[in-house]
Amino acid sequence: MSHISKEISEVAHEMGLQQGDWIPYGIGKAKVRLEVAQQKPRSSGARYVLVTAINPTPLGEGKTTTAIGLAMGLCDMGQRAVVTLRQPSLGPVFGIKGGGTGGGKAQLEPMHDINLHLTGDAYAVAASHNLLAAFTDNHLFHGNELSLDPRSITWPRAMAISDRALRHVTVPGHNQVKGREAQFVITEASEVMAILALARDRSDLRQRLGRIFVGMTTSGKPVFAEDLRCAGAMEVLLQEALLPNLVQTSEGTPALVHAGPFGNIAHGNCSVLADEIALRHADYVVTEAGFGSDLGAEKFFNIKCRVSGLVPNAAVVVATLRALKLHGGGGTVKPGRPLPASLTDPNRQALEKGLDNLAQHIANIRTYGVPVVVAVNAFPEDSGDELEWVRTRALDLGAAGASVSTHFQEGGKGASDLAQTVIRVADQPVRYTPLYKDTDTIKGKIHAIATSMYGAGQVAYDPQAERDIERATQLGFSHLPICMAKTPLSLSHDPLLKGRPTGFTIPIKEVRILSGAGFLTAVCSGMQLMPGLPKVPAGEGISLDHETGEIRGLR
Amino acid sequence: MSHISKEISEVAHEMGLQQGDWIPYGIGKAKVRLEVAQQKPRSSGARYVLVTAINPTPLGEGKTTTAIGLAMGLCDMGQRAVVTLRQPSLGPVFGIKGGGTGGGKAQLEPMHDINLHLTGDAYAVAASHNLLAAFTDNHLFHGNELSLDPRSITWPRAMAISDRALRHVTVPGHNQVKGREAQFVITEASEVMAILALARDRSDLRQRLGRIFVGMTTSGKPVFAEDLRCAGAMEVLLQEALLPNLVQTSEGTPALVHAGPFGNIAHGNCSVLADEIALRHADYVVTEAGFGSDLGAEKFFNIKCRVSGLVPNAAVVVATLRALKLHGGGGTVKPGRPLPASLTDPNRQALEKGLDNLAQHIANIRTYGVPVVVAVNAFPEDSGDELEWVRTRALDLGAAGASVSTHFQEGGKGASDLAQTVIRVADQPVRYTPLYKDTDTIKGKIHAIATSMYGAGQVAYDPQAERDIERATQLGFSHLPICMAKTPLSLSHDPLLKGRPTGFTIPIKEVRILSGAGFLTAVCSGMQLMPGLPKVPAGEGISLDHETGEIRGLR
Repeated sequence: MSHISKEISEVAHEMGLQQGDWIPYGIGKAKVRLEVAQQKPRSSGARYVLVTAINPTPLGEGKTTTAIGLAMGLCDMGQRAVVTLRQPSLGPVFGIKGGGTGGGKAQLEPMHDINLHLTGDAYAVAASHNLLAAFTDNHLFHGNELSLDPRSITWPRAMAISDRALRHVTVPGHNQVKGREAQFVITEASEVMAILALARDRSDLRQRLGRIFVGMTTSGKPVFAEDLRCAGAMEVLLQEALLPNLVQTSEGTPALVHAGPFGNIAHGNCSVLADEIALRHADYVVTEAGFGSDLGAEKFFNIKCRVSGLVPNAAVVVATLRALKLHGGGGTVKPGRPLPASLTDPNRQALEKGLDNLAQHIANIRTYGVPVVVAVNAFPEDSGDELEWVRTRALDLGAAGASVSTHFQEGGKGASDLAQTVIRVADQPVRYTPLYKDTDTIKGKIHAIATSMYGAGQVAYDPQAERDIERATQLGFSHLPICMAKTPLSLSHDPLLKGRPTGFTIPIKEVRILSGAGFLTAVCSGMQLMPGLPKVPAGEGISLDHETGEIRGLR
Repeated sequence: MSHISKEISEVAHEMGLQQGDWIPYGIGKAKVRLEVAQQKPRSSGARYVLVTAINPTPLGEGKTTTAIGLAMGLCDMGQRAVVTLRQPSLGPVFGIKGGGTGGGKAQLEPMHDINLHLTGDAYAVAASHNLLAAFTDNHLFHGNELSLDPRSITWPRAMAISDRALRHVTVPGHNQVKGREAQFVITEASEVMAILALARDRSDLRQRLGRIFVGMTTSGKPVFAEDLRCAGAMEVLLQEALLPNLVQTSEGTPALVHAGPFGNIAHGNCSVLADEIALRHADYVVTEAGFGSDLGAEKFFNIKCRVSGLVPNAAVVVATLRALKLHGGGGTVKPGRPLPASLTDPNRQALEKGLDNLAQHIANIRTYGVPVVVAVNAFPEDSGDELEWVRTRALDLGAAGASVSTHFQEGGKGASDLAQTVIRVADQPVRYTPLYKDTDTIKGKIHAIATSMYGAGQVAYDPQAERDIERATQLGFSHLPICMAKTPLSLSHDPLLKGRPTGFTIPIKEVRILSGAGFLTAVCSGMQLMPGLPKVPAGEGISLDHETGEIRGLR
């Protein structure tokens, strides 16, 4: 019920969608039918631009804002642009970080709707996910014909809200079945969410759901969702959720919002179907991957591009002065507290040192054969000298282009230099190379990510992780790519290690089989797939103003 | 994505809604703005008709189908009719009973959408509910400033799916807080769902959320959602869910679907706001209460009417030959199996005996001063003689009117006799009297329901229930009405006691404080607020046909 610039019918029309191609969902929201993606050819010469970032402060560096600003800037240049983004999660909205719809003059509309329920996709994902959990425990209850070993069940339950208490619960036993531990993950970390994001069409969605690994029989055979006769109903629950959601930027640029965020504990990319639809209706498709090039972008290149066959023409790395200074030892950031002056005031020494972090991210992207544009996202209090100095240094560090961007304050106009740079760089030839081969071992793949992307010296495996890898290999899943679960706040696994650490050891506590999504999740020690709330959750400050009908405190 | 007869804009227009009064949500669904309820006066002389039933077989006796058929029949007579119903629950849809959108030629459209997600209200309710649970455990984790006693916490979590394993889980302890038991209820049994159904406006919704009882401090003071600073965010999550959903019957009659079913474990009535909106746009508003007059209708009269101030002009009691024969000892019904011939073939002896059950339901309704119409819902295999015999006997038993209705086979045309009877009877004067006074004690109220509505001799309380009643009384909640949790399959607490049992003892195992919803839930022994799935859940047979795009197996 928040503000919108244009009627959604106008946005759809400007994007080139016909009347029957989209379905209205409330004010300013629509779902796009999949036939649009399947029937029309891709725009010839359409450019596909990934937006990623350096390791952020806990406040975020405006990556979503930059993706939106860039799309608006491209439109200002007369280009047809569409931005594809992830649906925000209720966890951060009511927890620490707030919403995920950009900010300032570079936002998505209708902001509140998108931050809350959008069109209900995440709920449909959770219902589909939890139906399989209920079917699994029900199977145990009614005689356990499949001889499923209760202790082997790895399928968790999913919950829309950050709820620390649900990380490890015990469900009671019955008959001959002992009580056992059951986990909850936040919906965005659900394998079903990843399946929604990676499915190429309905038939692919259905097959992936059937391939979900649930656990093992007592005689050592894998049990899948298909064996529990649940995949058909799971697909029915996702029938509408599979359709990408059309909304708009604060300047009326078409935006497709689809699938979940959390590039730290999930793959954290927008859906393949949203990108495919966008590439049929734009000269430039700007898409965002969660957190830095060590997380969302790494997964974009090695998981999403493997599935979609799409190759980006350029990648934008977003950097801010405050984050670079943080990496250079200039101070610390605490959520909910004002930034220290050492991060906001000029501090060339910290900035210089922090550039090391940017250097790694530029190098990471270049590993894939894709040219890099650095976007220095300017805050009002930033020094113009420092902004320009970082821009120049980025070119020295291997960026094919670099621009200071003021879209937060000025909208698309503020991103015009960035847009021009992207247009120039995205014309360069790309020779896409994934980081590892399907045939590499599981440990080989994890090693490649840890050393090349993070700068680690080696990887250490807990006994559980060793057992997980052995089992995944025995079951024939070693060909799958890896989805790392790691903190976004450092290139390493340790959030306190800023800058560009080297030689550290990445500790892996477990490796989960997500055979429906088509990857293995390697979880670094200390990472949780269900976040907790802070002492004062953001939700405490969120309320409805009954006089105006406006939502207060939701950002 | 299922079939619809009319565009939803046409349905809205015919109902008298203006352009800005409603918001489209997908194909054939819309939300109606609350201003419609708040600004326009009620239609003068609008009649309010409740549809209830005798104790059903596990298959249901077509109460929803009859409510829909009656509304269509009234339209055929040139009356403006609106039917108000509850949103079906995913639990039964994927479990035993199937969907809740009527059947045959008396259905709601779009059927699949309504049975699955509708506009996401139930998910918003669960998110709002679970946010309070997360806030509560988070409060314990971060120092427990309120000195909340963990063992006293009664606020459960909510889940959209029937999942037996979640009835009693153990969440781990931390710091000085011990691990404790945590319950999950199905979303429809959530207090937040009841609050959505009973709220008179936004301000009332907000106040009710704040009044939710969570648990006690170690010094014996009650802790509410307001104390946990969660109610504002809970309201924001419900902002759109509070708007009733407009859909249509298979003949294009306007239907408002809002709030949850489950008249056994919840109050199980459609929302007050849906009824208020309908009463401003119709000559006849047909609303349905869950299960028999012992459950949904009892709660309609003693909970919903207390809040809304609305009084029905007539109540329709739906009866079927098969259910009456079941009550008369004619055979047993098992879900998923064909009915025995002793229930489908003529069996006057069983029918005669089973009439006792109908007699109690007629008497129950008359207790409230409301005239009764008996609708004998005809199945194709039913004997015409028997149908007519039951119709006549119903008049002897105190019904002000009785009709045989064939809406399942014939749509509104088949309900024309029923519609005429309702028109006649609803013109009679009503002298509404609730069953008990606010000032009666908790046990006094439970006794009144058990003896007058069920035919019980007495009520027995488990020690837990005794403690619960003592606490609720001490905390000043004894003025609240009672919401019983009892099997729908018998007038008693025992599903096997058919007909009209007398003299039995109703066993109460616990009494829950739902101070936000504004009632106390008295749970009979053996009742669960989270259903389990059967050995072969309906979900196993539900799938999407990729050729046609149709959903199979969802009824």
